[in-house]
Amino acid sequence: MSTDQLSHLLAMSATIAFAVTGVLALADRRVDLFSIVVLGVITAIGGGTIRDLILDVPVFWSNDLSYVRFAVLASILTFIAQSFFAHPNVYKLMLYIDGLGVAMFGVGGAVKALELGFGWPIGPLILGVITAIGGGLMRDVLSGRKTLLMSNEVYAVPVALGILTTLVSVHFFPDFKSEAILAGTIIAFGLRSCAIYWSWHLPAWFTSTPR
Amino acid sequence: MSTDQLSHLLAMSATIAFAVTGVLALADRRVDLFSIVVLGVITAIGGGTIRDLILDVPVFWSNDLSYVRFAVLASILTFIAQSFFAHPNVYKLMLYIDGLGVAMFGVGGAVKALELGFGWPIGPLILGVITAIGGGLMRDVLSGRKTLLMSNEVYAVPVALGILTTLVSVHFFPDFKSEAILAGTIIAFGLRSCAIYWSWHLPAWFTSTPR
Amino acid sequence: MSTDQLSHLLAMSATIAFAVTGVLALADRRVDLFSIVVLGVITAIGGGTIRDLILDVPVFWSNDLSYVRFAVLASILTFIAQSFFAHPNVYKLMLYIDGLGVAMFGVGGAVKALELGFGWPIGPLILGVITAIGGGLMRDVLSGRKTLLMSNEVYAVPVALGILTTLVSVHFFPDFKSEAILAGTIIAFGLRSCAIYWSWHLPAWFTSTPR
Repeated sequence: MSTDQLSHLLAMSATIAFAVTGVLALADRRVDLFSIVVLGVITAIGGGTIRDLILDVPVFWSNDLSYVRFAVLASILTFIAQSFFAHPNVYKLMLYIDGLGVAMFGVGGAVKALELGFGWPIGPLILGVITAIGGGLMRDVLSGRKTLLMSNEVYAVPVALGILTTLVSVHFFPDFKSEAILAGTIIAFGLRSCAIYWSWHLPAWFTSTPR
Repeated sequence: MSTDQLSHLLAMSATIAFAVTGVLALADRRVDLFSIVVLGVITAIGGGTIRDLILDVPVFWSNDLSYVRFAVLASILTFIAQSFFAHPNVYKLMLYIDGLGVAMFGVGGAVKALELGFGWPIGPLILGVITAIGGGLMRDVLSGRKTLLMSNEVYAVPVALGILTTLVSVHFFPDFKSEAILAGTIIAFGLRSCAIYWSWHLPAWFTSTPR
Repeated sequence: MSTDQLSHLLAMSATIAFAVTGVLALADRRVDLFSIVVLGVITAIGGGTIRDLILDVPVFWSNDLSYVRFAVLASILTFIAQSFFAHPNVYKLMLYIDGLGVAMFGVGGAVKALELGFGWPIGPLILGVITAIGGGLMRDVLSGRKTLLMSNEVYAVPVALGILTTLVSVHFFPDFKSEAILAGTIIAFGLRSCAIYWSWHLPAWFTSTPR
């Protein structure tokens, strides 16, 4: 299997995991199949769409519809086999794949912004974070859930740290881009995996005290 | 009256109906006139705006401000004459015109995406649905209402089926585009009209059971 | 100090004030530092970003990252020194600077749209209002707060009136653009200041009665 094939396989796995976790996040409310598909697809491709609009490049799914197709299929499948995907072990597996997807999409989005000349490091960092969590935010807003920004889950911070790792590495060692991307993805995914495994929450000093 | 004039008249009627139903959806809460106009205009032109951003073409109301003007006027009028528009018969009429607008804008949005080369059929389908319901979703989110994605109203499914009809017809009979557009619009509007008339709701098997 | 320097200083002060008031608006709930920064930055640059997407020009912060940098720093500082910024006098000062920012960004956004040929007066008016309040709306939606469109605060109406003043003045006296911008900004900021000072609320006749 070539690197390109591997990268495509991983992107598709991540898209599917995004859609599956996106649909499972709605399992506590009554939603029809059509809305399930809409929200699953938005979770999967929403963040990258906002990034591409801001970068003023064609949205990534306009050229390769397999992202949308897999998101639609995964959403329908999750709807039908909800009890399977909601099984603790399967759900946990999906959380890890989702974490890998967030890591890959976040770092990938940041690198895309960097290559298009967005000011280092804060422009690519913002667009990477948008790529990673934008779709989930849209799903939460449209379905009336509390967004992940208002929870104390360790979800966005790992990907932000991973993106920063990649951006700093690329800046100082421009010849080792692939290694920088790999390092950032590993850090983002590794931290998120620890957070899932040990049920980490953000520490109290990192959180404001409501008045 | 030429076809162009008819089509323009219908688009303006639909814009007005979008704004009126958009404002009436807020009748259960205290909203000032300024916010009414903002939310009425967003309901009327929001969906098409998102579609044009994703298609990377100039937003449709930048060339022809009559859309915005009619939306503003209709919002103000609805605010002033709320008791008139809230009258059951007038409101029902507005629901039907709104249904016609959703059908026309949805099918029209999908065809616009198809002509710009978005991958058949799922690209145009997504953009058509966005055109049809995007403005209403934005209004609901901004005003704190449950979005239509979380209701079991038969609102988005008819327009999705109408759009699919048009897309499939255009694909297999490219010489009969006008007929395909007409057929899709009739199916979308017809199904939505049945849903309004008989108070259809989405069936239980089509809807997830909350855990 | 040249006019350019003054204008840049004012824009940066406004960006900081946006971020500070944006973060303080979240003081009644538990939010972690990462989300604080995300929401502060969105409050500060979100409205202008939507405007630039609709105008189809590069987003304003892609060329000059100081907007983002100041928004990040101000958000972090507000998180750390929340009790200082929440002090009534400091908070009041921030409200006035925020009002100045809304006035400047609103009028500036409208003029940018006018120069790019968006139909006078309603195109630039809409884009000016989006520039002024879009970021705050996004913050409210993402953090689950009631948006300002649903409050009876005198916040958006002053900036709309100021923008209208500028647009009408530029239309009839095209040679006095700077004066028109100044007049509109003063009207928007003056009215908002009165609203803050005397705790104005929108009058009852301006507001719908819920059924």
